[in-house]
Amino acid sequence: MGHRLADTSTPARLAAPDEGIGHDELALATRNHGLPLEALRYDVTPPGLHYVLTHYDIPYVPEDTPWPLTVAGRVRRPLRLDPAGLRAFPAVTTRVTLECAGNGRALLTPRPVSQPWLVEAVGTAEWTGVPLRLLLAEAGVEADAVDVVFTGADHGVERGVEQDYQRALPVDVATGTEPEVLVAYAMNGAPLPPQHGWPLRLVVPGWYGMAHVKWLREVTVVDAPFTGFQQTVAYRLRQESGEEGEPLTRIVPRALLVPPGFPDFMSRARVVRPGTVALEGRAWSGRAPVTRVEVSTDAGRGWHEAALEPDDGRRWAWRRWHYPWTAAPGEHELMARATDEQGHTQPLRQPWNRGGFANNLVQRVPVLCLEHDGPGAAD
Amino acid sequence: MGHRLADTSTPARLAAPDEGIGHDELALATRNHGLPLEALRYDVTPPGLHYVLTHYDIPYVPEDTPWPLTVAGRVRRPLRLDPAGLRAFPAVTTRVTLECAGNGRALLTPRPVSQPWLVEAVGTAEWTGVPLRLLLAEAGVEADAVDVVFTGADHGVERGVEQDYQRALPVDVATGTEPEVLVAYAMNGAPLPPQHGWPLRLVVPGWYGMAHVKWLREVTVVDAPFTGFQQTVAYRLRQESGEEGEPLTRIVPRALLVPPGFPDFMSRARVVRPGTVALEGRAWSGRAPVTRVEVSTDAGRGWHEAALEPDDGRRWAWRRWHYPWTAAPGEHELMARATDEQGHTQPLRQPWNRGGFANNLVQRVPVLCLEHDGPGAAD
Repeated sequence: MGHRLADTSTPARLAAPDEGIGHDELALATRNHGLPLEALRYDVTPPGLHYVLTHYDIPYVPEDTPWPLTVAGRVRRPLRLDPAGLRAFPAVTTRVTLECAGNGRALLTPRPVSQPWLVEAVGTAEWTGVPLRLLLAEAGVEADAVDVVFTGADHGVERGVEQDYQRALPVDVATGTEPEVLVAYAMNGAPLPPQHGWPLRLVVPGWYGMAHVKWLREVTVVDAPFTGFQQTVAYRLRQESGEEGEPLTRIVPRALLVPPGFPDFMSRARVVRPGTVALEGRAWSGRAPVTRVEVSTDAGRGWHEAALEPDDGRRWAWRRWHYPWTAAPGEHELMARATDEQGHTQPLRQPWNRGGFANNLVQRVPVLCLEHDGPGAAD
Repeated sequence: MGHRLADTSTPARLAAPDEGIGHDELALATRNHGLPLEALRYDVTPPGLHYVLTHYDIPYVPEDTPWPLTVAGRVRRPLRLDPAGLRAFPAVTTRVTLECAGNGRALLTPRPVSQPWLVEAVGTAEWTGVPLRLLLAEAGVEADAVDVVFTGADHGVERGVEQDYQRALPVDVATGTEPEVLVAYAMNGAPLPPQHGWPLRLVVPGWYGMAHVKWLREVTVVDAPFTGFQQTVAYRLRQESGEEGEPLTRIVPRALLVPPGFPDFMSRARVVRPGTVALEGRAWSGRAPVTRVEVSTDAGRGWHEAALEPDDGRRWAWRRWHYPWTAAPGEHELMARATDEQGHTQPLRQPWNRGGFANNLVQRVPVLCLEHDGPGAAD
């Protein structure tokens, strides 16, 4: 009897009804982390608060490690760029809101067993790098090119398949300007942190996180559709496991609110005192600009228009919104929902898919408003 | 019927046998995060990889917020220090390994329901700040002083008690030099990140994380033992809920190893190929210096001495150790354990306590060594 990868890897599965989060899901949740929702207050997420998801280990890349980026395959002039060669191209800085395709997964019933996000797998950063289209123009993409494949240095096994993490973009997306894809070497003005792809990563504004290949080593232009694991097995919208499924691409609209007041440590329930409570949050969509945010303070019975702040020309970043709420003693449920220019909005009941992807169920924040406004309210 | 804090806060409880991690524990696990174990490779943990635990929300403190630190109570000359006033005192930089008192909690049976750490609630940083003993000397501690109370700006409710986070140290610890307690304003040479206490925090080298009060606003010298919630209700070693319990203080010894090879995404099981595998890890103790690390590659049947690297005079930081392992095809279980100068070591069966504190159960890392060493091993 051999010892094979299949021994350590199991097929995708759904949790049984009432099955709590398992040790495997917890091991992912203690490594990866979301944005603490109070950090929605920052325009740009401070280091360490931006969500992180890595499939395998974070590669250990000491500062002086040679890291040639290759651009090869169906190109006329293959490139091999060291850091100085890359920095010789014009640099662009873009503020981007990045969300994990699996955000909201742990709220689904049945729950797909994977990284168990609630609603917090999001963050906004300023990414600096070279537009991919400039690198591809320099290399000279052949006329028969179909996909551009991105290979990271992160290595692992998933459902029995040993792999370096790889994803592809269609050539027209890779060379496009809406969004302009970046090969990024800085985050918020500093070198990339290890967990965000040091020394190089892809940034595909408006797309879910799985497209933004970290620890990027190779860009390979191919003349047939890419069929790697992360493209055709994982990250597909499916109802049944045998289906081909739809690929995941751009982020669907979502609004999140900063939970007001203060929390209970264990239940995370929110407590406010009577009076005006300045509700605020952020909204984003990778599909089309957000044009509207509505707030409900009574569990969705009534909806009120929130004030949406200008985007200041930052199409790919979240927008701040605010709404003043007059809280009265009692229990309340706050909600917020975004609508984009194409009329896409957020559901009150989440349609289900087997991978738990592209969820944008309206957030619900239960709030207890105390009777009194003094510190004696705890008595 | 009033709406009271007790409505939102529940007593501490233990999970039922076979009860999976609940939504409340998951909500904590997606906010707070551990050190991805591969990051044990760094002497100093890069920003964003150091473990984080916050009881309530991370206070939002814009850069220009006035933040006077007061030193008051049983002192002859109360102080009120703005940032410039604080920086007028001599600065000290100390490399400190910080561990959460609840690390390992989720491995206990029955499991105390709280932040569900496995083994990863640790990190090492260089903290720069003013020795607390200098501030207390400047203020002039009265002869009847007993405790020094530290008040943070983080506000919440816990088991029905509304509070700012507060902890105390005995006067002799607060004014001592082994360890030298710091009021820190920088982490790894940069201003504190919001989640690590910006703009000021306490650092108590060798003590569990609960002592290192973040978002520090007030230092208050008192003439009676401090009886606040985090001192006498939480953070006590107890078998039964009614007991007074023992306070948590210094970190017990622990070694962790960098899981070798590469992981399966979902199971986090490790895969290596046959041959020499350089095992490495870190070991620390807040009680006394670590003097020995042993490694087992056969689930604890045999133990081998690991090479322990010098501490370079950094008493409060973890020490690196390494051990070369010759992996043969099959299933293995790796373990490592630290022993300190006082002979304290790590248990193979974890003694239980009701809060799930001060665990240092020996880490177990299951590893599959494949038959072959080529990429075809997956077939």
